[in-house]
Amino acid sequence: MTRSGRKSYSLREIAGRFGGKIAGDSGVEVSQVATLESATSEAIAFLANERYLPQLKVTRAGAVIVAESARDATRLPRIVCANPYAYFARVSALLNPERPSQPGVHASAVVDGSAEIADDAEIGPCAVIGRDARIEAGCVIGAGCCIGDGVAIGAASRLHSNVTIYHGCVIGKRVILHSGVVIGADGFGIALEGERWIKVPQIGRVVIGDDVEIGANTTVDRGALDDTVIEEGVKLDNQIQVGHNVRIGAHTAIAACVGIAGSTRIGRHCRIGGASGIAGHLTIADHVEISAFTLVSKPIARGGAYTGAYPFEPHQQWRRNAAQLRHLAELARRVRVLEKRRKQPRGSGS
Amino acid sequence: MTRSGRKSYSLREIAGRFGGKIAGDSGVEVSQVATLESATSEAIAFLANERYLPQLKVTRAGAVIVAESARDATRLPRIVCANPYAYFARVSALLNPERPSQPGVHASAVVDGSAEIADDAEIGPCAVIGRDARIEAGCVIGAGCCIGDGVAIGAASRLHSNVTIYHGCVIGKRVILHSGVVIGADGFGIALEGERWIKVPQIGRVVIGDDVEIGANTTVDRGALDDTVIEEGVKLDNQIQVGHNVRIGAHTAIAACVGIAGSTRIGRHCRIGGASGIAGHLTIADHVEISAFTLVSKPIARGGAYTGAYPFEPHQQWRRNAAQLRHLAELARRVRVLEKRRKQPRGSGS
Amino acid sequence: MTRSGRKSYSLREIAGRFGGKIAGDSGVEVSQVATLESATSEAIAFLANERYLPQLKVTRAGAVIVAESARDATRLPRIVCANPYAYFARVSALLNPERPSQPGVHASAVVDGSAEIADDAEIGPCAVIGRDARIEAGCVIGAGCCIGDGVAIGAASRLHSNVTIYHGCVIGKRVILHSGVVIGADGFGIALEGERWIKVPQIGRVVIGDDVEIGANTTVDRGALDDTVIEEGVKLDNQIQVGHNVRIGAHTAIAACVGIAGSTRIGRHCRIGGASGIAGHLTIADHVEISAFTLVSKPIARGGAYTGAYPFEPHQQWRRNAAQLRHLAELARRVRVLEKRRKQPRGSGS
Repeated sequence: MTRSGRKSYSLREIAGRFGGKIAGDSGVEVSQVATLESATSEAIAFLANERYLPQLKVTRAGAVIVAESARDATRLPRIVCANPYAYFARVSALLNPERPSQPGVHASAVVDGSAEIADDAEIGPCAVIGRDARIEAGCVIGAGCCIGDGVAIGAASRLHSNVTIYHGCVIGKRVILHSGVVIGADGFGIALEGERWIKVPQIGRVVIGDDVEIGANTTVDRGALDDTVIEEGVKLDNQIQVGHNVRIGAHTAIAACVGIAGSTRIGRHCRIGGASGIAGHLTIADHVEISAFTLVSKPIARGGAYTGAYPFEPHQQWRRNAAQLRHLAELARRVRVLEKRRKQPRGSGS
Repeated sequence: MTRSGRKSYSLREIAGRFGGKIAGDSGVEVSQVATLESATSEAIAFLANERYLPQLKVTRAGAVIVAESARDATRLPRIVCANPYAYFARVSALLNPERPSQPGVHASAVVDGSAEIADDAEIGPCAVIGRDARIEAGCVIGAGCCIGDGVAIGAASRLHSNVTIYHGCVIGKRVILHSGVVIGADGFGIALEGERWIKVPQIGRVVIGDDVEIGANTTVDRGALDDTVIEEGVKLDNQIQVGHNVRIGAHTAIAACVGIAGSTRIGRHCRIGGASGIAGHLTIADHVEISAFTLVSKPIARGGAYTGAYPFEPHQQWRRNAAQLRHLAELARRVRVLEKRRKQPRGSGS
Repeated sequence: MTRSGRKSYSLREIAGRFGGKIAGDSGVEVSQVATLESATSEAIAFLANERYLPQLKVTRAGAVIVAESARDATRLPRIVCANPYAYFARVSALLNPERPSQPGVHASAVVDGSAEIADDAEIGPCAVIGRDARIEAGCVIGAGCCIGDGVAIGAASRLHSNVTIYHGCVIGKRVILHSGVVIGADGFGIALEGERWIKVPQIGRVVIGDDVEIGANTTVDRGALDDTVIEEGVKLDNQIQVGHNVRIGAHTAIAACVGIAGSTRIGRHCRIGGASGIAGHLTIADHVEISAFTLVSKPIARGGAYTGAYPFEPHQQWRRNAAQLRHLAELARRVRVLEKRRKQPRGSGS
């Protein structure tokens, strides 16, 4: 324990759990993680980017996590490892354990008699659990969550407050869903009949793999006929929209505010930048990186980085330049004319 | 009944309800809809796009719905009709009826004594209904919904779980609101007074017509002074933002993640692609189609298709091309100079 | 009182409260605000933009609020002031007072025994208040809100229904949070370890200053290590995403659907247009204006207006022009060749 009352660990204990080599005093104890800039002597910080080397020189941290290349850049007690940022994540999880669950169903929760709730699951106040739902061991269902009929939630998953899951959806193990997430709402299926739209029933489900995390207010629509699938290890940030029948490959990470239209398949290990859009019925290969604010309007068959954002500039300059965009095809034609004339002898009548 | 225990219908019964001509065995029974690819013998599939003709050849569906032009492309029992996709939607609704409502107010719901709730309406667990609210016949108000004072909801409307409607808003008949929808929050009305913003009270309402469907986490702001209006038959996908005093014309369909700024009027029968933006105080004509990821910054007076997305490409190519955008006005000027010189006799001093 | 039963005020009373000079009958009473177009004789309207002068001529309003420059443009009873729109906002707030709070905790709310709730605070139905939370005087916590452990909410703040605040966050005084807002969900902190992402615990808080308003379904993530900070007087519209460790300077206003990536610092008195994106780890100066649909991908060191949206046009024209964008660098090169050749004497071998 440190003065703050938090549990502390020596570098020796930490390296015993997570590996790495210790340089300096292996008995120094830390109880929290921090940035190099704001760390105190009770905290352990990390250096993952050489840009922060100057901060390493002056940090007040009690210890640091560094890569081999920075081993000698400080005299602080330190753990030297291959991947300081991931190591730091492990140490932070050790020092900041999840709030332990409080097994049991809150008196104000409404749980259908046919639902199966594991004994050690926690069902929060005013949560509503539907018919034949199944909540497995160690789950935490936050206050105000609405879990539809027949939903299955795998062991050790955590739903923060006010999450909604529609009937029949399947959530894997160790999944984290943040507040405002909506899983399994109807996809945008409409058919034109004369001049009116009629609804196409959405009878597929959403199936979410293990170790998926989904950020606040993100929505994943149920499939129209077959299922919408989020494979294991996918990380979705906030306010993302996933259309019906999309499949997102394992370990892909998608930043906030992205929209993915229906029936698109995104590969494994992709990274999609914030506020991008991906059109429907496309296939995106594995290991594709999409920059922020890019519309992907065609399939991408090979891994690599793709971009399509308009570069911003001071408004007056943008005005002048953007005005020419509407004449770009004409400008190209005029350049072709000049090139052609150039090749002709003068006086040849061009 | 089929083996799955679902209710089944013969093609003859289906055509009796929805029209169309039967080719092949009119007695074959189906109990579910499916894609050509995943259908089994108990399912009926459809062909709306000739691109899927190869799948029609090999499908295991028990029957199919096709257009006249594809009547002879299969020997399966089939219904031939003018609009296979709309027909399919009708059949799917027949085979997948809505969960019947469970009339009554759940014991955990909180309904103000002055609210009028139709006898056959269903008010779900932990729903909250305000003063003088009116919920008409056959409505389903999902778990955790919050319905403000004086809200009126027309017959046979369905609110999924965790929908919020602010005071005074009016919802039509057969409206579907998905989870996380917020109707009637304050519009973004602020006035600068010195260097501080002061709030402009938002005293209008939201008025939503019959047969509107609104997707998960979409927000529709109340009017500043007059009302925000969504006309009948409008279909809004997920995560759309509709600003104060917007009017959306009847039977317009808007894909996910679109933002519509205040006081804009969108015509009837428009289609707006996903992640588009529409600036404020504009009028958009009827029958306008906006492509995905397009900013509409000016009024549109005539129907037709409009686009404004930056085409994506491999990052390195984008880098080179986008860098030139900042010099485009200058490039156009240089081309004019070349053209002008070309017209002058050489040696004339240019 | 007017016929409508609303409380009315004479122009004399209004000018007594808010200043300004009266022209015409100072005894005329008004009970509501309205637009010039829809006002009746019981309403007061305003003219803030000369574009609406024709409406001033024909309005049926009982009185109007105008600037000095429009003093003689009408003979209606009027209040002449420096800033008619802000004046109007004040009058509207007078005529449309907030629903008074109903002190007390609703029987269906779930309040932890350790929480401190001011006597005159209102805690709505099915709201859930966590351990050690503190709700100060005059607060209204709407139905279905979930307030995490240790959250502090300053006096006179209003949370509409279904707002979620995660543990430990701090909300200032007179803050307004609209439905669906999520404050303090985990930021998008993930570290790659081999081919899998591991979660980086998010241990910072969200700290929101006084007089902030946040629109429906907006999300503000908690800091990874230090805090995410929204300074006093900031106004955020709907469906905005604020990433972890962002700081938004005082009195900045941000329109709907904007995404702000992690660790970016936005200055004071900025205005950000709708559906814009701001990349991470940037610093934006004070008094910056960003146009709608613009990606800010680099720091902005000076106040001023910045834009980066692709101009939309009829689809066929867009097609032709956008196709050339992929050849823009090449086009620029060809123009350089033409210029160079032009300078060389003909026959010099170019």
